[in-house]
Amino acid sequence: MSEMTDGIGYLLEKNALEEAVVKYCVAIDKLDDLDFMMSNFTPDAVLDLTGLDLPRFEGHEQIRGFYAQVFADMSHHMHILTNFRVAELDGDEARIFAYVTGMGRSKAGIEIQVYVYYDLDLRKSDAGWQISRFYEAPQLPMPESVTQVHKKH
Amino acid sequence: MSEMTDGIGYLLEKNALEEAVVKYCVAIDKLDDLDFMMSNFTPDAVLDLTGLDLPRFEGHEQIRGFYAQVFADMSHHMHILTNFRVAELDGDEARIFAYVTGMGRSKAGIEIQVYVYYDLDLRKSDAGWQISRFYEAPQLPMPESVTQVHKKH
Amino acid sequence: MSEMTDGIGYLLEKNALEEAVVKYCVAIDKLDDLDFMMSNFTPDAVLDLTGLDLPRFEGHEQIRGFYAQVFADMSHHMHILTNFRVAELDGDEARIFAYVTGMGRSKAGIEIQVYVYYDLDLRKSDAGWQISRFYEAPQLPMPESVTQVHKKH
Repeated sequence: MSEMTDGIGYLLEKNALEEAVVKYCVAIDKLDDLDFMMSNFTPDAVLDLTGLDLPRFEGHEQIRGFYAQVFADMSHHMHILTNFRVAELDGDEARIFAYVTGMGRSKAGIEIQVYVYYDLDLRKSDAGWQISRFYEAPQLPMPESVTQVHKKH
Repeated sequence: MSEMTDGIGYLLEKNALEEAVVKYCVAIDKLDDLDFMMSNFTPDAVLDLTGLDLPRFEGHEQIRGFYAQVFADMSHHMHILTNFRVAELDGDEARIFAYVTGMGRSKAGIEIQVYVYYDLDLRKSDAGWQISRFYEAPQLPMPESVTQVHKKH
Repeated sequence: MSEMTDGIGYLLEKNALEEAVVKYCVAIDKLDDLDFMMSNFTPDAVLDLTGLDLPRFEGHEQIRGFYAQVFADMSHHMHILTNFRVAELDGDEARIFAYVTGMGRSKAGIEIQVYVYYDLDLRKSDAGWQISRFYEAPQLPMPESVTQVHKKH
């Protein structure tokens, strides 16, 4: 973890990492731009939602399919990102944690509010920092509404 | 957008911009200092609340009148600011977006909780970064309590 | 307040201060590591919860006792930290403010959700920034559930 110092290089990378995760929140809350959503993920990314009792998706085709369904299901989204922290930073590889209050309303009228933590690996390339491993799990006990909306598929 | 680089200059301006918006939240949550509130706005500022079905206010006199009424109406406020991002930065002009969970209680006992996004222009002068255009709109569907409290005026 | 400038030194200290408070949130939300919790406090720290109608604790023994009881009482915690700002910074002494949405569930099944502000003094030593004075108070009116859980002791 050569860059995990208190220096300016660390601050610049931390900011870039946080902006990458904020960008993911913009994409998931826009609910209408799959290409923009996929630009958040490395080509070999894994989207592991087993912590929410949902599937594990590997690679862009599977991940894109999941978000296509989410965008089809939901009319509103708001992912409130806080408590961002860099757990590991080693050159072009990083691991971050954050809290997310995930809110939304499905087109069927179901209201969702979940309190989760994100545990993400990111990798830096010419495309900037992108998510290579996405894992989330409840920080507070989960309401049933989440699985009602997403799990039927 | 000459300063939209990954460099330290960008980081310093981004921090100054975020501190300017946090300062606005301090002012709106204090509910008792109109001069401090107005120090957040450029002399020619526009406060555009049409996204909330409320009026559009131009210049300090109109804006001050609006906040005077808010301060008279509300007993508690808490504006939770997250997902801050710099959309544009060009010298002394900037545009930022952020999420705000706006909570409060009116003196009449009405509880308010709204989930909005801020879309702000800021301008830098000797007074630091100040808001020149303030726009907000719902990120999630709005409860009726907001218009109940503010719209009667 | 020699370091309260717009420079890079201020940014580095502000980031270190925010990381110290995020670390406290990690500790209070883990609910299982008292040594890690106590590493957040200077040896002479004061934990003043009188703003919540709870006691004032002085020094590690008293503070550790309080958190031992919290960890025994609670099954889930989530402390959402926002609106972080540096109010004072003078060498190795600092004062910060922040908002915290404090959520949790007690083992007895009581749900807690409080909206408070933190008012903290921190001191820097070889151990990094640690909290020397911890004060919090409601930003929005408090539900009765909080005192139900913690006050019986």
